[in-house]
Amino acid sequence: MHEARGLKPPPAAVVGHSLSALATPALLIELDAFEANLARMAELAEKASVALRPHAKAHKSVAIAERQVAAGAVGICCQKLSEAYPFVAAGIGSIHLSNEFIGPDKAAMAAELAAHTRLSVCVDDVRQVQEIGAAAARAGVRIVVLPEVDVGQGRCGVASADELLALVEAIDGQKALRFGGLQGYHGGVQHIEAWAQRREAAQRAAEATAGYVRQLEARGLRCPVVTGGGTGTAEFDLASGVYTEIQPGSYLFLDGHYGAIEWQGALQPLHALFVAATVMSAARPGVAVCDVGLKSVAVDSGLPHVWPRDAEGALNYAAANDEHGVLEVSEVESTTLLGEKLWLVPGHCDPTVNLHDAYVCVRGERIEAVWAIEARGLSR
Amino acid sequence: MHEARGLKPPPAAVVGHSLSALATPALLIELDAFEANLARMAELAEKASVALRPHAKAHKSVAIAERQVAAGAVGICCQKLSEAYPFVAAGIGSIHLSNEFIGPDKAAMAAELAAHTRLSVCVDDVRQVQEIGAAAARAGVRIVVLPEVDVGQGRCGVASADELLALVEAIDGQKALRFGGLQGYHGGVQHIEAWAQRREAAQRAAEATAGYVRQLEARGLRCPVVTGGGTGTAEFDLASGVYTEIQPGSYLFLDGHYGAIEWQGALQPLHALFVAATVMSAARPGVAVCDVGLKSVAVDSGLPHVWPRDAEGALNYAAANDEHGVLEVSEVESTTLLGEKLWLVPGHCDPTVNLHDAYVCVRGERIEAVWAIEARGLSR
Repeated sequence: MHEARGLKPPPAAVVGHSLSALATPALLIELDAFEANLARMAELAEKASVALRPHAKAHKSVAIAERQVAAGAVGICCQKLSEAYPFVAAGIGSIHLSNEFIGPDKAAMAAELAAHTRLSVCVDDVRQVQEIGAAAARAGVRIVVLPEVDVGQGRCGVASADELLALVEAIDGQKALRFGGLQGYHGGVQHIEAWAQRREAAQRAAEATAGYVRQLEARGLRCPVVTGGGTGTAEFDLASGVYTEIQPGSYLFLDGHYGAIEWQGALQPLHALFVAATVMSAARPGVAVCDVGLKSVAVDSGLPHVWPRDAEGALNYAAANDEHGVLEVSEVESTTLLGEKLWLVPGHCDPTVNLHDAYVCVRGERIEAVWAIEARGLSR
Repeated sequence: MHEARGLKPPPAAVVGHSLSALATPALLIELDAFEANLARMAELAEKASVALRPHAKAHKSVAIAERQVAAGAVGICCQKLSEAYPFVAAGIGSIHLSNEFIGPDKAAMAAELAAHTRLSVCVDDVRQVQEIGAAAARAGVRIVVLPEVDVGQGRCGVASADELLALVEAIDGQKALRFGGLQGYHGGVQHIEAWAQRREAAQRAAEATAGYVRQLEARGLRCPVVTGGGTGTAEFDLASGVYTEIQPGSYLFLDGHYGAIEWQGALQPLHALFVAATVMSAARPGVAVCDVGLKSVAVDSGLPHVWPRDAEGALNYAAANDEHGVLEVSEVESTTLLGEKLWLVPGHCDPTVNLHDAYVCVRGERIEAVWAIEARGLSR
């Protein structure tokens, strides 16, 4: 036996190689579709004169954030403080933390980040404001604070003008904090299947947000930023006249879940994210087993599907085990599939991305780039 | 703004600190329970004179594999070739790859591993045998091959004596390969809730395995190793007289799924794996939102539950979003929970572990160790 210290598995992909040399499982970006999605959202936001601040929780990659900023984004959103670190380290100059946090360790992280980037954060409780204010003052930094209002999701955010005003007052009472406006986000609306129904629900959420804006204005408080929205409602949010900024993330990738809802307007995202798999066992008639299971694709929003979909549904991803994906096979003899490579569309992009360390970016048959997923696993 | 290059988030935990200083989300091992689980399985295997080869796919950590070997394990199982690399690099001298693979890149990885450890692998198709044989011959290494037989799961493995004999012949035809025995594993049986019913199903699977062993023996072929079994059937597999080795993994941790099945015998694993969470928003009556969502806990086998369970069910983890866990609150005012730390029992340990980079190991109120999860994300 030879000394093995330092032994490491080979890389998934080498830039310049052909797709046929790809090791699986691998997380793929199909660059033509990705670039079309990237450009389209930037164009729609510019046309609407609404700031685009894409959500980096979807991609967790500096290379992608840089492309979003280059295409016109004013900065990015992050959902966790630790998630923001690689983006701040890479020089992203404006980050909105679109989520609440509590605890002196978290407030200290916010203050550290704010020394290096223009940071805004969300709150829905006066105790959060006090902690963040104290940490920012101690660090000698300024943090912009946007109270979150609950516009129908029933998760985070205050649900009355009185609570909102108490937050604004608390922010005003902290020298190191500045009131920056409001966040109103309704995650549930994003996934409504029928386009018209989704538009109505988005309008109701926007109107709820606008109601809070008006209540503040009636008291002489202007909201420099009103932020919210996601991929499913982006078009409606851009047209609402309520939001000054939108936060879509999944538009880059179009996962299976978003792919299954109706798109009727100017926004028609394309599938751009795939998990490449190999059939590694096909010992039974009617069954093929691939190497992509729960550790390579998230199944919380449904199982992945084989791409491109063939009309006969000859290959159906039917069950995910830890390291196995069980495919039902019709039309062909399963044994002929051994060694075949497949592209799977993940049901849900965010948690799927969070399972991988890199994107293998392909154009046609060529591996054009490998992008690190620096914020993978950074959930604090 | 200051230069931020190299900026990194603070560590989750510092050895020697108190639990109260823990940053969340964090993956916790409660060491007293973990050590009891570790010792108990080793003791039962020793008593039964069956080799224990625990499955490292459950923990993916060198520190844990070393403790298993120190407690008497003959080596470990891995489920993917890349997963085996950190264990081989750390000097684990015997690894069984309990899964099929195909493709010249994969065969080359097997050959590379076999230069540094005693490697056995599974096959269920002659084409796999040929590829592995060619790669091993090229590399000048020896690989032990165990055909997998399907003992009722209907996933991988051959389902007839004829197919099995064809595999054994193919192995014999490769100079660099050696026939090592059989693998018969039935994942579905592991989770049968009723103990007596699980025992019967395990006996049926063992009997199916034994049938293949007898068919080989009738042809003068001895199986040096007969491997299979998991945590749910370990006791029955040890008593079966069929298996020479067992492969349990989850016994170290007892996730929510295994915690919900009936344990009547000498094996009574304890919950030892938790995801620590903090309530970061509690703006609505009856609802508290914690910082552990889909990116910190796997939900494929059910949502996590709050630990310890209180009789009144005052806190019920009701929904997982990407970065949020929504808790239903009864008995107490939700707002009093803001900032509270909770321990969650994950529904399924394997994919939950695969979301984290380290275990924070606690004993009582003290953080005693931090163990890296070196094979996290290694799914090739």
